[in-house]
Amino acid sequence: MPKVSVCLSPELFEKHLPFEGAIVVIDVFRATSTICAAFEGGVKTIFAVAQIEQAHELKLQYPNAVLVGERDGKMIEGFDEGNSPEAFLSGNYAGKEVILTTTNGTKALQAAEATGNPVWIGALMNYQAIVQKLAGSHSDVLLFCAGWKGRLSLEDSLCAGLIAQELQDFGFALEGDEARMAFALSASGNIETVLKDASHRQRLEKLGISRDMEISMHFRSEHIPVFKKGKVEIV
Amino acid sequence: MPKVSVCLSPELFEKHLPFEGAIVVIDVFRATSTICAAFEGGVKTIFAVAQIEQAHELKLQYPNAVLVGERDGKMIEGFDEGNSPEAFLSGNYAGKEVILTTTNGTKALQAAEATGNPVWIGALMNYQAIVQKLAGSHSDVLLFCAGWKGRLSLEDSLCAGLIAQELQDFGFALEGDEARMAFALSASGNIETVLKDASHRQRLEKLGISRDMEISMHFRSEHIPVFKKGKVEIV
Repeated sequence: MPKVSVCLSPELFEKHLPFEGAIVVIDVFRATSTICAAFEGGVKTIFAVAQIEQAHELKLQYPNAVLVGERDGKMIEGFDEGNSPEAFLSGNYAGKEVILTTTNGTKALQAAEATGNPVWIGALMNYQAIVQKLAGSHSDVLLFCAGWKGRLSLEDSLCAGLIAQELQDFGFALEGDEARMAFALSASGNIETVLKDASHRQRLEKLGISRDMEISMHFRSEHIPVFKKGKVEIV
Repeated sequence: MPKVSVCLSPELFEKHLPFEGAIVVIDVFRATSTICAAFEGGVKTIFAVAQIEQAHELKLQYPNAVLVGERDGKMIEGFDEGNSPEAFLSGNYAGKEVILTTTNGTKALQAAEATGNPVWIGALMNYQAIVQKLAGSHSDVLLFCAGWKGRLSLEDSLCAGLIAQELQDFGFALEGDEARMAFALSASGNIETVLKDASHRQRLEKLGISRDMEISMHFRSEHIPVFKKGKVEIV
């Protein structure tokens, strides 16, 4: 029976290793939602880098690429866009390359890739597509929540819980107490009620970007982006 | 309005610092339950140390003290008792001193004390007494779950959630997403149903100590042990 486990913070990731199977990196507000939205908007490739300097170096190689990123929720000076799903849905950047760096998400992606396992991009937007794709598989799954600066985040834990809950219906076993906690969270209400008081939502709403949160919670995407060798592409 | 926050693993403790207020260290299976049971059984003082060697050194100073501890759930060779609430309830060790070292709990106690805040011992056994004591206070509270080797544990998270839930009724605000997750867990069922599949319960039941778990889940104590300068005593 395949197993599904949940890592609730990048600080705890090594406690889940060694791991063999598919790793789904989740950063609902907003890196992985921005990635899903970018592909919905026709973006070709996303380079995900942890450091701002790396983003600028890549820009020299890909001068037409869109520079996208945030630190502490705010757009980086000199960048084209913040870490905003809304910026992409209109199709403004169709066919383009994107260079992305964010506070939590891109670091989690790199830690996941370093294990040598396949790394998928998960968000509330595409969690149902991910469940469908995993349902037929027999490999174990680790849902890796990016959280916020090492602390847990309600939106990532909820997304992990929804995936774990549905995978259980497809015969996966919940592995570890983190999966059971995420499950209890996702069973405690719908997306809107569970995330009503989420810390990072409050933080971002203070920055005036509540539209991004609405999209991250309610827009649906069928894409399953894959992260490999620094690049995100859809399969 | 006083706030209640929850640290779900010792690995995340520093993310909750600086903190000013009362810290409640929770290690339901079994260090903090053993401590509550020991005071129920009339024990006078408990010296809590992180290392086995420190336990042996203290034994030289207190030759009549009871050596109590475990590593990986198992009793330590040469010790008088494992980390077992059951061993104390009969009153066998009434009036005695105890030297205690455990896999997760005693380390969490020391990390908590290093912050300079008052440190209380919390367990399912005494969580209602803790709520009553905190209800009249205006200081913030950090519920510090010992977990299992850095990973989260369902029983500690549940205990934190029960305390957070009741404190909210007394006007405390939930601070941070970890408190909201613990709350959702404690609201998802009763102690028995929530802990049905807890990893550490399964681990300990394989070692044949299910009676300890029953006591940890269902025995009730009115004591609030306090940890200070390496010693646990009741207030």
